[in-house]
Amino acid sequence: MLEDKAPQKTDIASLGEFGLISHLTQYFTITQNSTVKGVGDDCAVLDAKGLKTLVTTDLLVEGIHFNLSYMPLKHLGYKAVMVNLSDVYAMNAEASQITVSIALSNRFPLEAVEELYSGIQLACEKYNVDLVGGDTTSSTKGLLISVTAIGHAEDDKITYRNTAKENDLLVVTGDLGAAYLGFQVLEREKQVFEVDPNNQPDLDEYTYLIERQLKPEARKDIVKILHDLEVVPTSMIDISDGLSSEAIHICQQSKVGCNIYEDKLPLDPQVISTCEEFDLNSTTVALNGGEDYELLFTIAQSDFDKIKGNPHLTVIGHMTDEASGMNLITRGSNQSVPLTAQGWNALLDQNTDS
Amino acid sequence: MLEDKAPQKTDIASLGEFGLISHLTQYFTITQNSTVKGVGDDCAVLDAKGLKTLVTTDLLVEGIHFNLSYMPLKHLGYKAVMVNLSDVYAMNAEASQITVSIALSNRFPLEAVEELYSGIQLACEKYNVDLVGGDTTSSTKGLLISVTAIGHAEDDKITYRNTAKENDLLVVTGDLGAAYLGFQVLEREKQVFEVDPNNQPDLDEYTYLIERQLKPEARKDIVKILHDLEVVPTSMIDISDGLSSEAIHICQQSKVGCNIYEDKLPLDPQVISTCEEFDLNSTTVALNGGEDYELLFTIAQSDFDKIKGNPHLTVIGHMTDEASGMNLITRGSNQSVPLTAQGWNALLDQNTDS
Repeated sequence: MLEDKAPQKTDIASLGEFGLISHLTQYFTITQNSTVKGVGDDCAVLDAKGLKTLVTTDLLVEGIHFNLSYMPLKHLGYKAVMVNLSDVYAMNAEASQITVSIALSNRFPLEAVEELYSGIQLACEKYNVDLVGGDTTSSTKGLLISVTAIGHAEDDKITYRNTAKENDLLVVTGDLGAAYLGFQVLEREKQVFEVDPNNQPDLDEYTYLIERQLKPEARKDIVKILHDLEVVPTSMIDISDGLSSEAIHICQQSKVGCNIYEDKLPLDPQVISTCEEFDLNSTTVALNGGEDYELLFTIAQSDFDKIKGNPHLTVIGHMTDEASGMNLITRGSNQSVPLTAQGWNALLDQNTDS
Repeated sequence: MLEDKAPQKTDIASLGEFGLISHLTQYFTITQNSTVKGVGDDCAVLDAKGLKTLVTTDLLVEGIHFNLSYMPLKHLGYKAVMVNLSDVYAMNAEASQITVSIALSNRFPLEAVEELYSGIQLACEKYNVDLVGGDTTSSTKGLLISVTAIGHAEDDKITYRNTAKENDLLVVTGDLGAAYLGFQVLEREKQVFEVDPNNQPDLDEYTYLIERQLKPEARKDIVKILHDLEVVPTSMIDISDGLSSEAIHICQQSKVGCNIYEDKLPLDPQVISTCEEFDLNSTTVALNGGEDYELLFTIAQSDFDKIKGNPHLTVIGHMTDEASGMNLITRGSNQSVPLTAQGWNALLDQNTDS
C-alpha cells in the first residue's frame, strides 16, 4: 500500500464562518468561574464579583510583527496570547479570558489555522484563561491576529504606570535582550537558507534565545510571587519595546527620573556570548532589544527586604526627582548617560503598500 | 493671497506609535462611572459593581467588509463601533466601553486616520460609551479595524440566543433589507462613475437606503424600550447576516422551529420601490440582505399586550416545535417554504491573495 504523504489541506470556505469558529473552538474548555457564557452568542458574559475588570488588546500583523518563514503557526498563536496576558500581569492582575479575532487570506488551509489555534489553546491551558469569543474573516493579504485579554484584580492591588515615587527601587524580572538576539539568529539563518537551502543550521547554542523569541512566556508567576511576598509595586509595566523605552514611560507618566546601573542589568550567558559573536553591545541589546515580556516595576525601599535574593527579581536602579532625568550609570566609569527610547516602533517598520 | 487648496497630509510615522495614539484619543472624554482607567496603561480598568460584564469583538477588513471608494472614513469609524454595540444590545445589555485597534498601510496619512477616529468619537458620544484602549500598527496592505465592546447588565436581564420557547412570538425591530439595497445602489453608482467620471449621480430617492448602509445605528433604544415596557425577551440576536440566517440561529440553538409570515415583514417604501427598479424580490432582500443591525427576539405570548402597537416592533411570526422546521409562510397562498441561510459569508467573499 502506498501512503499519501501529501499533508491534508482543507479549504476553509467549505466550512463557512460559523462552521470554522465551532470547529476551531471545539476543544477549548471553560474553567474560569467568572465565565458565565463563552463563544456562541453575540457577547461573552463575565462576572467580576466585585473585582475590577481589566481589558487589553493587541494586533499582530504578518510581515510587520511576525514572519511565517521561521515562526511556526502554533508558536505564533501562543505568542499572540502571551503578548496580551503580559499586559494584564503588568497591572498586577490575574488574566481570566481572551477573545481572538483572525483575518486570513485564502493561502491558509484549515490545517494552518488549526495549528494557530493549537498554540492559542496551549496558552489558554497553561495560563488558565478561557477563550470566550472572537471573529474570523478573510483578508486580501496575509494573516492578522487581534487578541483582547480580560483580567480581574482587587482595587488596591492594581498597579499603574504613573505612580512611581522618588527613591523607589526599580526592579526587573528575568533577564533582558534574549528575544532580540533570538530574532537576529533566526534572521541570519533565514538568509543562509535562502543562499543554500541544503545548509542545515546548528542552532543548539542559541536554544534559549530562539525560545525567548518564538515562545515567550508572560510572567504570571510574578503576580503570585509579589502577592505571596506581600509586595504591591508602586508602578509596573511590561517590557515589550525594550527596558529603556518602558523605564521612560514610567518616569514620564510618574513625573520622576531614574538611574539604571549598567552593571546590574540581568543578562543570560547566551546573550553575552552571542553579543560577542554578532559584535553587538550587550547593554544596548538589554536596553533596547524589546519583546522580552518581562515586567519592570518600582517598589518602596521599605519593601527591599521582602524581595532581596529572589532569583526572579533584580534591582537595577532607583527613581530620582524629575529634574535629574533618566540615566544609565555606566559600568566602571560611573558616567551618567541619558536613556533614549530606541525601542521597536511598529509604525516606522516595513510599509510595503502603495 | 493664494489659498493652499491641497489637503494637508501628515506622515503618520513622524508621530510614532504612542504619539499617534495620544493624538487620536486626545478629544475622547471618559463619561462612564464604570471606567476606572482608560487609554494609557497596559490595560483599561473597569468596575462592574455587581453587574455582569459582556464582551464582544469584530474585525472589519478593507476589500472584504468595506470599500473606501464609497465609504467615507468617518462613516467607517462610526459603523465599526455600531457593529459591536449592536452585539451588546442584542444581549439586552448596556454598552459602556470600547477598544479600537487599527492596522493601516502607509498610503493613509494622519488626516485619514483622524477622519476615521472622528467617526469613532461621534459614535462614542452618541451612544455614551468610553474609548478605553486599543492598538495602532502598520499593515502591508490596506486598512483593518478591530473593535471590542464591553457592556454590563443585570443577570436576569441578559438575553441569549438559545432560550426561545415553542409558541413564543418572533419580533423584529425597525425594517429590513434597506442596508443591502443601499449597497446595491452604491455599487451601481461606482460602476457608472468608472465609465463616465463626469456623471453626477442623483441619489436623493435612495437617501434612506444609503444611510442604512453607510451609517447604520445600533438599537440602543430598544434595550430601553423593553426595560420600560417590562419585557425581558426569551431570546435575542442582532441581524448582521440577514433575518433568515439569524432566525435559524435562534431556532437551532434553542431547539425549536418557527413560522415567519411574509406579509408581516416590515419594509420601508424605498425598499419596495428600489426592489422594483432593480428587479429584486423584496422578500428575498428582507430575509437575506444583512447588515440591517436590527434586533430579532422572541417574547412569551403573555407579553404581547405590552409591545402591541409599538412602532419600533413588528411581530413577524412565532416559534414552533423543532420537528416543524423553520418556515416562511407565503403571502396570499399561505404556502410553507423552508427558510435558508443565504446570508453574507465573509469566508466565501473576495479572496485575492495567492
